[in-house]
Amino acid sequence: MLHILFLLPLLLSTSHASVNDFCVADLKGPDTPAGYLCKPPTKVTTRDFVYSGLSVEGNTSNLINAAVTPAFVGQFPGLNGLGLSAARLDLAPGGVIPLHTHPGASELLIVKQGLITAGFIASDNSVYVKTLSKGEIFILPQGLLHFQVAYGKRKASAFAVFSSPNPGLQILDFALFASNFPSPLVSQTTFLDPEQVKKLKSVLGGSG
Amino acid sequence: MLHILFLLPLLLSTSHASVNDFCVADLKGPDTPAGYLCKPPTKVTTRDFVYSGLSVEGNTSNLINAAVTPAFVGQFPGLNGLGLSAARLDLAPGGVIPLHTHPGASELLIVKQGLITAGFIASDNSVYVKTLSKGEIFILPQGLLHFQVAYGKRKASAFAVFSSPNPGLQILDFALFASNFPSPLVSQTTFLDPEQVKKLKSVLGGSG
Amino acid sequence: MLHILFLLPLLLSTSHASVNDFCVADLKGPDTPAGYLCKPPTKVTTRDFVYSGLSVEGNTSNLINAAVTPAFVGQFPGLNGLGLSAARLDLAPGGVIPLHTHPGASELLIVKQGLITAGFIASDNSVYVKTLSKGEIFILPQGLLHFQVAYGKRKASAFAVFSSPNPGLQILDFALFASNFPSPLVSQTTFLDPEQVKKLKSVLGGSG
Amino acid sequence: MLHILFLLPLLLSTSHASVNDFCVADLKGPDTPAGYLCKPPTKVTTRDFVYSGLSVEGNTSNLINAAVTPAFVGQFPGLNGLGLSAARLDLAPGGVIPLHTHPGASELLIVKQGLITAGFIASDNSVYVKTLSKGEIFILPQGLLHFQVAYGKRKASAFAVFSSPNPGLQILDFALFASNFPSPLVSQTTFLDPEQVKKLKSVLGGSG
Amino acid sequence: MLHILFLLPLLLSTSHASVNDFCVADLKGPDTPAGYLCKPPTKVTTRDFVYSGLSVEGNTSNLINAAVTPAFVGQFPGLNGLGLSAARLDLAPGGVIPLHTHPGASELLIVKQGLITAGFIASDNSVYVKTLSKGEIFILPQGLLHFQVAYGKRKASAFAVFSSPNPGLQILDFALFASNFPSPLVSQTTFLDPEQVKKLKSVLGGSG
Amino acid sequence: MLHILFLLPLLLSTSHASVNDFCVADLKGPDTPAGYLCKPPTKVTTRDFVYSGLSVEGNTSNLINAAVTPAFVGQFPGLNGLGLSAARLDLAPGGVIPLHTHPGASELLIVKQGLITAGFIASDNSVYVKTLSKGEIFILPQGLLHFQVAYGKRKASAFAVFSSPNPGLQILDFALFASNFPSPLVSQTTFLDPEQVKKLKSVLGGSG
Repeated sequence: MLHILFLLPLLLSTSHASVNDFCVADLKGPDTPAGYLCKPPTKVTTRDFVYSGLSVEGNTSNLINAAVTPAFVGQFPGLNGLGLSAARLDLAPGGVIPLHTHPGASELLIVKQGLITAGFIASDNSVYVKTLSKGEIFILPQGLLHFQVAYGKRKASAFAVFSSPNPGLQILDFALFASNFPSPLVSQTTFLDPEQVKKLKSVLGGSG
Repeated sequence: MLHILFLLPLLLSTSHASVNDFCVADLKGPDTPAGYLCKPPTKVTTRDFVYSGLSVEGNTSNLINAAVTPAFVGQFPGLNGLGLSAARLDLAPGGVIPLHTHPGASELLIVKQGLITAGFIASDNSVYVKTLSKGEIFILPQGLLHFQVAYGKRKASAFAVFSSPNPGLQILDFALFASNFPSPLVSQTTFLDPEQVKKLKSVLGGSG
Repeated sequence: MLHILFLLPLLLSTSHASVNDFCVADLKGPDTPAGYLCKPPTKVTTRDFVYSGLSVEGNTSNLINAAVTPAFVGQFPGLNGLGLSAARLDLAPGGVIPLHTHPGASELLIVKQGLITAGFIASDNSVYVKTLSKGEIFILPQGLLHFQVAYGKRKASAFAVFSSPNPGLQILDFALFASNFPSPLVSQTTFLDPEQVKKLKSVLGGSG
Repeated sequence: MLHILFLLPLLLSTSHASVNDFCVADLKGPDTPAGYLCKPPTKVTTRDFVYSGLSVEGNTSNLINAAVTPAFVGQFPGLNGLGLSAARLDLAPGGVIPLHTHPGASELLIVKQGLITAGFIASDNSVYVKTLSKGEIFILPQGLLHFQVAYGKRKASAFAVFSSPNPGLQILDFALFASNFPSPLVSQTTFLDPEQVKKLKSVLGGSG
Repeated sequence: MLHILFLLPLLLSTSHASVNDFCVADLKGPDTPAGYLCKPPTKVTTRDFVYSGLSVEGNTSNLINAAVTPAFVGQFPGLNGLGLSAARLDLAPGGVIPLHTHPGASELLIVKQGLITAGFIASDNSVYVKTLSKGEIFILPQGLLHFQVAYGKRKASAFAVFSSPNPGLQILDFALFASNFPSPLVSQTTFLDPEQVKKLKSVLGGSG
Repeated sequence: MLHILFLLPLLLSTSHASVNDFCVADLKGPDTPAGYLCKPPTKVTTRDFVYSGLSVEGNTSNLINAAVTPAFVGQFPGLNGLGLSAARLDLAPGGVIPLHTHPGASELLIVKQGLITAGFIASDNSVYVKTLSKGEIFILPQGLLHFQVAYGKRKASAFAVFSSPNPGLQILDFALFASNFPSPLVSQTTFLDPEQVKKLKSVLGGSG
């Protein structure tokens, strides 16, 4: 009966290369176009595959009455190379996740509480908007502008899941008004009035 | 001012090929290795991007005290080509999602209610098991055997999201005992006793 | 000597499946997540691989003093499945290609005449801007907001090439102000003043 | 006990979309950039996954004393979408598989009988040549010129496997001398003497 | 005539980055989601592209009367990044390769000697089984349970090739009974009788 | 108003992993199958995204009256991971870019000056040749033999763009005659006369 046991090391122990089911990110090392270097398999534990950071409600005491808590590869290294990540959205009444894009991923929105109006704008400027209730899901195709806002007077929350461990996040207002994008260029490339640009830059802390 | 309007059709209307942000599945047509043919863009509406089937609790009055409700491309055509899908798991007390694999996708498990013990087995036969509470997430790497069971005496539920619109699902017991896989071959390739095979085939309805 | 000729049909003529070097788009058929169905190989000619539409200067007599002439798969079917497309940018003095993204592609900008100030904004709101002269190239990573404007008082032109046969194009102003995106939602998700939204909607033709 | 049986149809029978483990090519339909349309799952049988054409020795009574028998998707539709194909090489003494490339695939050569000298040339013009005996394997990276010749006075055979269901095959001599590539252009772009071009065109049947 | 020689270094020697036809694995370095770091090109020799380990018959003097000899990237570093790997199967009379999956690859089975009964089970629990003779090939789609057994009283052998340099290998019995997967969880998630689990754990060395 | 500012660091500053819009190559580090390791984001500047090397005409005072100036990842590290690269072709009257392939990329040729006759040969030995004028573009599918020659008595230039940051370049004549590919093997695998091989080896500097 012992003989069968020899098959196992033959197949699987010739080198550490045999275990490649996953590649937990070594966040201290460099990134590559396909994700982070893998943590040595011998150092991987169950904890690398679990993340608890989304179990806590985000703090919505801010201007947008909303919070986004990411579980991207930077927070949850076990996602590295596996084509998925997540985030938790918390919306107080009146809460708004401003228009944004994920440059490298599609998003699936899963409403867990309350009512959320979500929408995206396609390349042909068609607008797809829907108010979702608990348990409904909405697919937001890759790279397109989209938003989520609380509907009605109740608070709401959702999970967003992404088709990449590191989907990226470009918030339109931050790109325009919280950056050092020179104000004349902002106006020139968006047709926004200089006063509007100036006003929002002062709110959001942009310079230039 | 009207001149700018001419830019829009110039860029976007030369042909219908210009709108390729998404490819809602035409489930009546054939599949391809990359997914279904696209529904004509002119017939796409907001409803194609929303799915409500996961908002209803599954019926757990069955042997496994559990239910899986899929939102794969076959149920939710808007997912086609976008690298994501989802399912809802409902577990009554004692509920079990038996050992299974998704041949073509990794899974991210998001606990929405109760306590769930989930785990997977890696190629080197390491076992990663964790009892998760509400809001915790667990990443299950592609193609590996895994399971979910209700922990304790409370009911539980979760969302599972996948890195493919059509992740596939191979339930070990169904493959072995609900199929027409000839019983001698089952025993020969699993070392299970013929009596065990016979017993489970009679429960699960397999032949051969 | 004739014998060698038998090798050729043996290898290559067993079925039409053998010729798969390319897949010229059949634009009359449906799209798939990986591109259009292929035109039958027997109907492919040299003309399918050549496109002349970028040899003509675009008409810049419009509000933005600029023109974009695409050579995407919709205009140039030979690109189908080959991971590349192109466009020609023409900028009269003062010309502006407004802020936009390509949801599914990176862009390489090649200046062919004049001076062009181009830039993009990264997810961390860093801004990368450079004035480029003839022959200089600028890489714009996938999915990020970017722009091109004529620098100085000369006209300018450029080729933009993309890492997809159908890169998509979402022009920020058109998405916000030329669409039927409801004005209250525009203000709510961008923090723009309602007057600003109303003004630009009237210019760009948006409703809602 | 019957209850568990209800789980199976729930999971797997909602639509035919649920079975996507494979996509057997419908060779009568059009191709796409990702492969052929799938044959309807209900028409798939075990025979779609088996191919017997490589069990027969190829006819090497020809100028090159060699034969290549392909099992690409055109011959073996079950390969569609699965990233693999194969071919059988038979080499009589003196047999030669002339210099060629596979535009879309790497090749793994497995010697099954005799001795075969195989080699490839890299982009930096390094040459990697080795005489292989039975059971030895040689990896030939994608898109590079390579060849196989019988070593010594014995006949030899091999299996070649490819990283694509339709790897393509461009035989250098056929491209140059069996085509209608105009002879002056052949000389101009290869520096071969016109007499050499003329001679080989007459052997291989090229025109122009 | 020397002038042409200047073209070569211009094109190819500007930096070592120019030689990227292959990426031989540096197995001493870390892995990434796309494979191992590349060995420096200057240290690559022909030996990196050849592997002789499959030319020797595996030792079948064991319980399963079978042996699997892998040529994955861990044994054959030249495969890194090239989408292919291989293994040799040796089956004495009565030999069995138990039910297993490759989580990240499809498999093409090539029979080289004897008769082999092979089969796989699809997600819809359809079973595809065939007895193959020398030279026949069988495609086994990614991630599905499959097996190979010697047919009749002769020994048999085969090559298996995979669509990944590191296909992974999860042997069902080892996952269940040679691991520390707690026995109560095994029974709970497979419906196997505790006695059956205990018996096979004692044979295969599992704990828990 | 300060509150909104807290959202930004929450989303984007948890770790450096959050900025993954690009991956500028660290050319001093090792390569991977997916490209080079990324330069630390903190060291990235606008200069990493701009390349000026194509603005200078190449030196065509050589045997082929032509020059190729590459902007691959080795010269322009900002391209790493972004699926694009470029080159500049300069052709004096009579200039020839000899037959060559790019093993890992398709090419889009954009004529910027003069007339260029370009062509490629498909796997079925069909030849696609066209003389292109300024602004015309020609798509050359991946891995196939192709060439560019100056048409008429004027000089010409073009940009070539590729569907990979490192497309590779295998020049047929250099592979055969500037390498140490043994002359008998060259003749045997190409059917070229030994005298022809000897003559071109002496011109191009090959040995063996």
